[in-house]
Amino acid sequence: MHRPASGQNQPMIARTPQPPYYAVIFTSTRTEVDEGYGDMAALLESIALDQPGYLGIEHAREAVGITVSYWTDEASIAAWKAQADHQLAQRYGREKWYAAFALRIAKVERAYGFIAE
Amino acid sequence: MHRPASGQNQPMIARTPQPPYYAVIFTSTRTEVDEGYGDMAALLESIALDQPGYLGIEHAREAVGITVSYWTDEASIAAWKAQADHQLAQRYGREKWYAAFALRIAKVERAYGFIAE
Repeated sequence: MHRPASGQNQPMIARTPQPPYYAVIFTSTRTEVDEGYGDMAALLESIALDQPGYLGIEHAREAVGITVSYWTDEASIAAWKAQADHQLAQRYGREKWYAAFALRIAKVERAYGFIAE
Repeated sequence: MHRPASGQNQPMIARTPQPPYYAVIFTSTRTEVDEGYGDMAALLESIALDQPGYLGIEHAREAVGITVSYWTDEASIAAWKAQADHQLAQRYGREKWYAAFALRIAKVERAYGFIAE
């Protein structure tokens, strides 16, 4: 059982701890094939929440889609990459959903934020 | 004079070199104040293109906006932060345009990509 991915319809700014931690920046352009994409995205977000080392996620799509997920360390990212449903999604992504993508793994060294009063 | 920001209406996946390089991940939620925002965004993107160390930019906005800019090194990021127009934009951003934001500076350690055949 996975807890509901309450944020999946209104993803917001992730509440991450003090650096260092890791970011996976996934930038993509879509094909016109939508088959199964929304369901898989929702499933993956709900599973990611339960992955060890998961810290948060941010997503937006216009001409490109950008998904940034945050993780405590590289081992957590490797485990998520190898997770079974995610493996299937990666295969479908290349076969059907994505015209192109770039995936970048980056160590967050500094961070700051702002909330309007 | 700045060369036109040809990508500003259709930002795509940035063509970045082999890592290491740096990413600035700027995630924001907007206020309802639009005054000057679009013009400033276009101006800043055109200026950023001419900044030393600039490698590329990716942007999308739905419930949150995510802008990821890529830079050769931290000195380039510091210079861009201090650039005059950008300083003004940072002030207006806090005063008018952003309800909240997070800014994360991260070192890209690994990257790979895919283009459908």
